[in-house]
Amino acid sequence: MSKFLDHINSPSDLRKLNQNYLPQLAKELRKFIINIVATKEGHLGASLGVVELTIALHYVFDTPNDLLIWDVGHQAYGHKLLTGRKDNFHTNRQLNGISGFPKRSESVYDAFGVGHSSTSISAALGMAIASQLKGENKHHIAVIGDASIASGMAFEGLNHAGVTDANLLVILNDNAIGIDPSVGALKQYLTNVKKGTEKQDNIFEALNFNYSGPIDGHDIDKIISELQRLKNVKGPKFLHIITTKGKGLKQAEENQVKYHAPGKFDAITGDLFPKTKTDEAPKFQDVFGYTIVELAKQNDKIVGITPAMPTGSSLKYMMDEMPNRAFDVGIAEQHAVTLSAGMVSQGLVVFCNIYSTFLQRAYDQVIHDVALQNLPVIFCLDRAGLVGEDGATHHGVFDLAYLRCIPNLIIFAPRNEIELRNIMYTAQLGLDNPIAIRYPRGKGVTIDWKQPFSNIEIGKGIELKKGASLAVLSIGFISKNVSTAIKNVKNNTTIGHYDMRFIKPLDEDLLHQVFKNYKTIITIEDGTIKGGFGSAVLEFAAHNNYKNSIKCLGIPDEFVEQGTIDELQKLTSLDAYNITTILESYS
Amino acid sequence: MSKFLDHINSPSDLRKLNQNYLPQLAKELRKFIINIVATKEGHLGASLGVVELTIALHYVFDTPNDLLIWDVGHQAYGHKLLTGRKDNFHTNRQLNGISGFPKRSESVYDAFGVGHSSTSISAALGMAIASQLKGENKHHIAVIGDASIASGMAFEGLNHAGVTDANLLVILNDNAIGIDPSVGALKQYLTNVKKGTEKQDNIFEALNFNYSGPIDGHDIDKIISELQRLKNVKGPKFLHIITTKGKGLKQAEENQVKYHAPGKFDAITGDLFPKTKTDEAPKFQDVFGYTIVELAKQNDKIVGITPAMPTGSSLKYMMDEMPNRAFDVGIAEQHAVTLSAGMVSQGLVVFCNIYSTFLQRAYDQVIHDVALQNLPVIFCLDRAGLVGEDGATHHGVFDLAYLRCIPNLIIFAPRNEIELRNIMYTAQLGLDNPIAIRYPRGKGVTIDWKQPFSNIEIGKGIELKKGASLAVLSIGFISKNVSTAIKNVKNNTTIGHYDMRFIKPLDEDLLHQVFKNYKTIITIEDGTIKGGFGSAVLEFAAHNNYKNSIKCLGIPDEFVEQGTIDELQKLTSLDAYNITTILESYS
Repeated sequence: MSKFLDHINSPSDLRKLNQNYLPQLAKELRKFIINIVATKEGHLGASLGVVELTIALHYVFDTPNDLLIWDVGHQAYGHKLLTGRKDNFHTNRQLNGISGFPKRSESVYDAFGVGHSSTSISAALGMAIASQLKGENKHHIAVIGDASIASGMAFEGLNHAGVTDANLLVILNDNAIGIDPSVGALKQYLTNVKKGTEKQDNIFEALNFNYSGPIDGHDIDKIISELQRLKNVKGPKFLHIITTKGKGLKQAEENQVKYHAPGKFDAITGDLFPKTKTDEAPKFQDVFGYTIVELAKQNDKIVGITPAMPTGSSLKYMMDEMPNRAFDVGIAEQHAVTLSAGMVSQGLVVFCNIYSTFLQRAYDQVIHDVALQNLPVIFCLDRAGLVGEDGATHHGVFDLAYLRCIPNLIIFAPRNEIELRNIMYTAQLGLDNPIAIRYPRGKGVTIDWKQPFSNIEIGKGIELKKGASLAVLSIGFISKNVSTAIKNVKNNTTIGHYDMRFIKPLDEDLLHQVFKNYKTIITIEDGTIKGGFGSAVLEFAAHNNYKNSIKCLGIPDEFVEQGTIDELQKLTSLDAYNITTILESYS
Repeated sequence: MSKFLDHINSPSDLRKLNQNYLPQLAKELRKFIINIVATKEGHLGASLGVVELTIALHYVFDTPNDLLIWDVGHQAYGHKLLTGRKDNFHTNRQLNGISGFPKRSESVYDAFGVGHSSTSISAALGMAIASQLKGENKHHIAVIGDASIASGMAFEGLNHAGVTDANLLVILNDNAIGIDPSVGALKQYLTNVKKGTEKQDNIFEALNFNYSGPIDGHDIDKIISELQRLKNVKGPKFLHIITTKGKGLKQAEENQVKYHAPGKFDAITGDLFPKTKTDEAPKFQDVFGYTIVELAKQNDKIVGITPAMPTGSSLKYMMDEMPNRAFDVGIAEQHAVTLSAGMVSQGLVVFCNIYSTFLQRAYDQVIHDVALQNLPVIFCLDRAGLVGEDGATHHGVFDLAYLRCIPNLIIFAPRNEIELRNIMYTAQLGLDNPIAIRYPRGKGVTIDWKQPFSNIEIGKGIELKKGASLAVLSIGFISKNVSTAIKNVKNNTTIGHYDMRFIKPLDEDLLHQVFKNYKTIITIEDGTIKGGFGSAVLEFAAHNNYKNSIKCLGIPDEFVEQGTIDELQKLTSLDAYNITTILESYS
């Protein structure tokens, strides 16, 4: 039982409390977050770090009339708990549960949906200008971390805001870490501001913001009095607060990367539950991480780049072993891609690892700087397909459609860990074109994955099973579900199965064989049906005037919500059971 | 005849000249540029502004061994003339001629291809890190304007460079203007630096750059001595120079927007040739510009946004009439889109006008901030399809493919000016979804375009001509070529013609009629064949198990070069003549 938190069902309840009680409420909120994340999993450290700020914001401002945006949203658990979502917080990140991020459709207190970083300043400025034009007297607050504010988009927002008189408050939650430690010159600068070696007349003042801080983000009285002061300051304001990620849980403070999203842990001691050590297949990201190190030892032209995901991509292994050849460039996907192009233009072999969903941030650079100049950058797109609990903001389902229209680009999806290794090996030998290698989140299927390298012929698919009347064409890891489904079908001798592997260039020889030998063709992909792999097969068929029946399976034309990957595959009919049913209906 | 320029065929010739002669060379270079642009058209002001810098760079540095990148590249004419392209400079921007931008395949002196802004710092840093790893002692120089450096991507590059010890020199060519005058807080700050009201310890020093300047960018001796000094400074360096766009041509200095790319003019007097006043159809951009003003007078919720293209988009008309409701946010497409989303979330009606090719810069924001939240932003995508002389970097041919996979989004292409007006009218009445309206560069066909508004039913195509066996499905303005082609076919009674107008949602009722009544179907679009409108029709056919023959025409899977739009339509078989031939072969 929590003395205060139990009685807070909305910020108006909070505002009735005497300010003296707020430190006690902060303790209760922390305890609630720790207890629930310990058993239900989720993002821990970020929300623990902003407990005092969260309370202060809802205490001082008139939410939801005043508009509050949390950048990225990993840190918004306390916000959710104070705004009426305590009782169903246990459904956090689950299918049909509440979202792990602020989401407009979930609550009026979630002024803007987030997930990808660095959007909060632009969105809040848009709202502030709207209020001005409508003659409304509202406050508009963007809370952004020091990793997110270093992204180009945030700078664009600041640069515009500074020449308006919009009623905008940007709060920099400076804890020197995103998911991994923050990097870059701005981070160093902020560190100097904290140390007092930079003067007050700083970057944010240069951009016309009324700057205040840095102040202790865990001193609730200090934050409240500063927010109250800022309420009466006109125009764009910037408050710099210093917090500790994971605040209030010793282990989370000491091991901030691990406790960003620690999985289940002991709520009392804070200790992580030891992972059961079994002979399991590796995560695809680890196959990438180990393989790039292995290849880089043999090929001194290899370089690795990640925009702020060293742990998530496992490029960390290379950064630890070869720090001068592996680069975390921060949340800067645009820069990462063009930096890669610059390096490749000078003969380096660059593996640029970006989550599929985040490559959307560098789409123009892929077209304009890489493909147009035909520079053979090797893109490794982790988290392609459905990603699970992070939900609609993070699924990597658009890549096949948005990459397929780009000339010169090769697109490959490995069916398993060995194929990922081998395509990395093949690519670093030297390709004539850039290549995008897209692979899923989580574990593969092959325990004994560390086989000697072998070359993969570009543009060649393979026959996994010969059939007679019905051919299934799949790409990459989703082939596993197809293989299972085919085994489930009783009379499966008529069903053929082909892993096309290359979405581009298509293996036209193999396709001609398939179209000549099978009456009906089913395509399957874990990407959008519109414009993806299936469409490529349709284009081939139309071009060659084939009249076979073709059915395309994939992600339907709607945003897919959160849930386990298994649950979401069921929802989108991409699980083995649903595929079985479809195959039976055709055979 | 030019005393010095005539003898310079490469920078090594330049380096043999005594420094005393360089001001005279600058005069000759300016005269050459003015004379040729006066008759052949092209970008004038930017190159005139950097004549001294261009000479100084090639004089001091060992190009092409040292690597020089011109951001955007509008300013690189002098560079091209000094690096062996004097004799064919008259083919600038023409089909098979030299490119209007630096281009790797054209010259070893063009270290990196450019066109879109703000890529130079990332590319040069990539090269500098490559040189470091390879143990090469080279200089790497990015020349970037004050409009381009305010874009987020440039900040990402600076932020990374500042924590490296790469041998990188960033030269800020500060002339307070891009194509239109620069905007934003950074621009104001730079103005204060110039005035001396900001101290030396500035933003760029805060980002760890060794800052020098501001210096007069037309004082060739001063630039040379500063560049020579900087050659010996290690690590990332930043040189701030002040120039005048259009320097050396009075009218170009005084009217910098008009003389950015003035068309033909009198090389002696500098006067523009008066445009012949005839009853011509308007440019699509002007239909947008006049119509938004007209609508905004009736609907006070309407707001207009452009990222740095007020003149090019004609949003300028609204900015002049209603400055508090029309915003130039600078080269900040990402910000522009999310700002729009923020405004729409508060009930404004936002027309966000971005060139098709530049929306590639904000792809993630369209998905994550607009479509996922289903906020009805009205995107007006100017310069969609082939854009002509700007070439491969600027064609707006990917939009249909990259937008079509996004759930919730409506995609419309107006066939003429009246349809553009009417869809703008329809959209501002209130849609349930965001919409992308894509229209071409240049003039339409309708002189009497200013008709009373009428509503366009969402998702409805129209029959332009009834036929019997062969149906042509087109979208938008390319329908004009199809209509002409059909008229050219002798026996054209069997040919039907449908303007589908909406690429998404497709008019499925109309498509069912077409597929039932015609044996053969041809789709035509001025976008990529892969994944575009044709693919949408193929998906419809496969889903409904139609077996009609379908041929898809569109931009082939390669980058299309420069030329007039007519020439490029011929090259890609999208002109009336080629379409005629294809129609005849089918009927």
